[in-house]
Amino acid sequence: MNTVKYFRIPISNAIRMSRAISTTARAVTFPKYGEPDEIANVISYNIGDKIGPNEVLVKTLAATINPSDINQIQGVYPSRPVWTKEINGEELTIGGNEGVFEVVEVGSDVKDYKKGDWTLPGVLAFGTWRSHALVDASKLSPPLGLNGVVSPLQIVTSNINPVSAYQMLKEYVELKPGDWVIQNGGNSAVGRAVIQLAKLWGYKTISVVRSRPDIDELIAELKGLGADVVLTEEQAASREYEEEFRKLVGPDAQIKLALNCVGGKSATSLTNKLSVNGHHVTYGAMSKQPVTIGAGPFIFKNITFHGYWLSARAQADPVGRNKALKEILGLVAQGKLQAAPALEHKISADKTDAENTEIARKVFKDYSKGFSNKKHVFQFQ
Amino acid sequence: MNTVKYFRIPISNAIRMSRAISTTARAVTFPKYGEPDEIANVISYNIGDKIGPNEVLVKTLAATINPSDINQIQGVYPSRPVWTKEINGEELTIGGNEGVFEVVEVGSDVKDYKKGDWTLPGVLAFGTWRSHALVDASKLSPPLGLNGVVSPLQIVTSNINPVSAYQMLKEYVELKPGDWVIQNGGNSAVGRAVIQLAKLWGYKTISVVRSRPDIDELIAELKGLGADVVLTEEQAASREYEEEFRKLVGPDAQIKLALNCVGGKSATSLTNKLSVNGHHVTYGAMSKQPVTIGAGPFIFKNITFHGYWLSARAQADPVGRNKALKEILGLVAQGKLQAAPALEHKISADKTDAENTEIARKVFKDYSKGFSNKKHVFQFQ
Repeated sequence: MNTVKYFRIPISNAIRMSRAISTTARAVTFPKYGEPDEIANVISYNIGDKIGPNEVLVKTLAATINPSDINQIQGVYPSRPVWTKEINGEELTIGGNEGVFEVVEVGSDVKDYKKGDWTLPGVLAFGTWRSHALVDASKLSPPLGLNGVVSPLQIVTSNINPVSAYQMLKEYVELKPGDWVIQNGGNSAVGRAVIQLAKLWGYKTISVVRSRPDIDELIAELKGLGADVVLTEEQAASREYEEEFRKLVGPDAQIKLALNCVGGKSATSLTNKLSVNGHHVTYGAMSKQPVTIGAGPFIFKNITFHGYWLSARAQADPVGRNKALKEILGLVAQGKLQAAPALEHKISADKTDAENTEIARKVFKDYSKGFSNKKHVFQFQ
Repeated sequence: MNTVKYFRIPISNAIRMSRAISTTARAVTFPKYGEPDEIANVISYNIGDKIGPNEVLVKTLAATINPSDINQIQGVYPSRPVWTKEINGEELTIGGNEGVFEVVEVGSDVKDYKKGDWTLPGVLAFGTWRSHALVDASKLSPPLGLNGVVSPLQIVTSNINPVSAYQMLKEYVELKPGDWVIQNGGNSAVGRAVIQLAKLWGYKTISVVRSRPDIDELIAELKGLGADVVLTEEQAASREYEEEFRKLVGPDAQIKLALNCVGGKSATSLTNKLSVNGHHVTYGAMSKQPVTIGAGPFIFKNITFHGYWLSARAQADPVGRNKALKEILGLVAQGKLQAAPALEHKISADKTDAENTEIARKVFKDYSKGFSNKKHVFQFQ
């Protein structure tokens, strides 16, 4: 078990300043790897009355639940949880990777943050499902400068999926207006952001979705967001449909970018439709099938295959992530981009730990039941 | 059947100049798709006594036989042969993609070439297996400027595989001295060039080869060329061998580039050994198995997968190809790089077409029997 600690970095030879008021925090914790709906514990604890010179005390305004958070607690995600004994003497981890914080207090040597700033986690496995965090300033992303422009809820619902869409559309190939992007999972949160951003920037989109009883409704909905062409997986894979497809996109269509969150045959369909010198970006593997690439796409079509992982990229380039997020939130504020609707779950100071634990476990149980177009968000009060 | 012609581009409204002497050419031709050892015909024909203002008459100094040439005639290669009726009135194609030419005569408007220049094909499916070619200047690569520095044989044996090795080592990731490259097909012509160039440039190599009775001899030979680590496919794929492997390369080895000409499990072994942010380049698929990539290498290791095809790249950037070739030939001339040994096959003016046809078919028959470390080369006399 990984016992690296960075909830509170030991500060050798440094004086921790006494703070005026000590804070009672609440956190959604896990004692071991397992199913979150079975092992989650909400714990109240005192955050202490001292702040180190390089530390920042933040209050969580909102924190999302994402599939990767669940996988992390299950122990099946490459970014491992951080285990600590500093909360209540028992080894445990705090869940959550994504959230938005307000700075409450800063240590004497902290220059980059001031009270009231809004900020994001700057490291993987931050543990965002807690009301407060006292951390080294280096573990935070730069201040957002968005207080009052958008709500904390808009920030957390825009942060992961639209930023992924933004970066994938921008970073692999220089698209010109009229160029085409093809994606699978076209009705996912990333897919919907891709459709909307592409429309705003003048690119055309082909969105592949799984067939379903209400497929016409879904197609109408995606077209309402700005989708140009919507195909079922069967149509995308079909040789018979190829002629019809080429009619839809036109004979000169430059399909320069494919965005893949499914893998397997669906990824192959995207590859086959890409133009020569195209780029194929994998950011998920919903089918749990790998991407299979023959010599043809590699050698004769010169397709380049990339992987995209927001978490690692945000850690490597927090300024780039913030830039993308600010542009997206500007579009949200102007009503040009629809953020995902949110489902809020409150962990309150006026409830006991046992009551809050029951609330948290029910959230995870509902979450594990599956798909919702709504973004689950913890709020700490 | 593709009937595009560019052996002789029709020149409308242009005067073809009469030439002092007409030339009798010999070419290795094919009447249809099929097995070269069954259908090859060597044909003598008069190249005419006129040259267009933008045309160049070249004499072939040497022309290689490569696997892709054979695949092209079999009709199983994406770059298709060029079919023409201009040789003897019957539809046929001239084989061969690679060769080195000497300029014999230039049209009145040709500025970039002069008599005596050495040059290479500038287009795919040139048809190099002929003693002479009268072509539009745009179908040739820029003059090499290497007359007398190296032999035509050194040029053709250095052109394909060492240029591939050179470009793959240079173009996908910036390697620093001490960085590692891993490759399969380590004993192939490309593999040997990779070992030698990497050694010259200070990079370290891991070469994976198929196990065989004389494996110790092969390992010694590759180490003689400068190989740092040589593994069998079984060792490269083995979890048990992983600890030993890490000892061989050291705990801090940065394995930044993988070069794959095999595909299948062998490609997976290379991927698994690559460092985070590594690049994987596929330039062949000897196993006829595709490359299979799970979400892990894509998303969590951020490996980028590329394809490399010298032919298309040389056509897109002939200047870049010539630059690489010149640097390689400089190393060959200095004895720092071993060119592949050549096996020369003569198509002579003092033999009948039937006799030359018999020679050519025997060459293809021997070639199809398989592996030789020697490069087969046609010479026209």
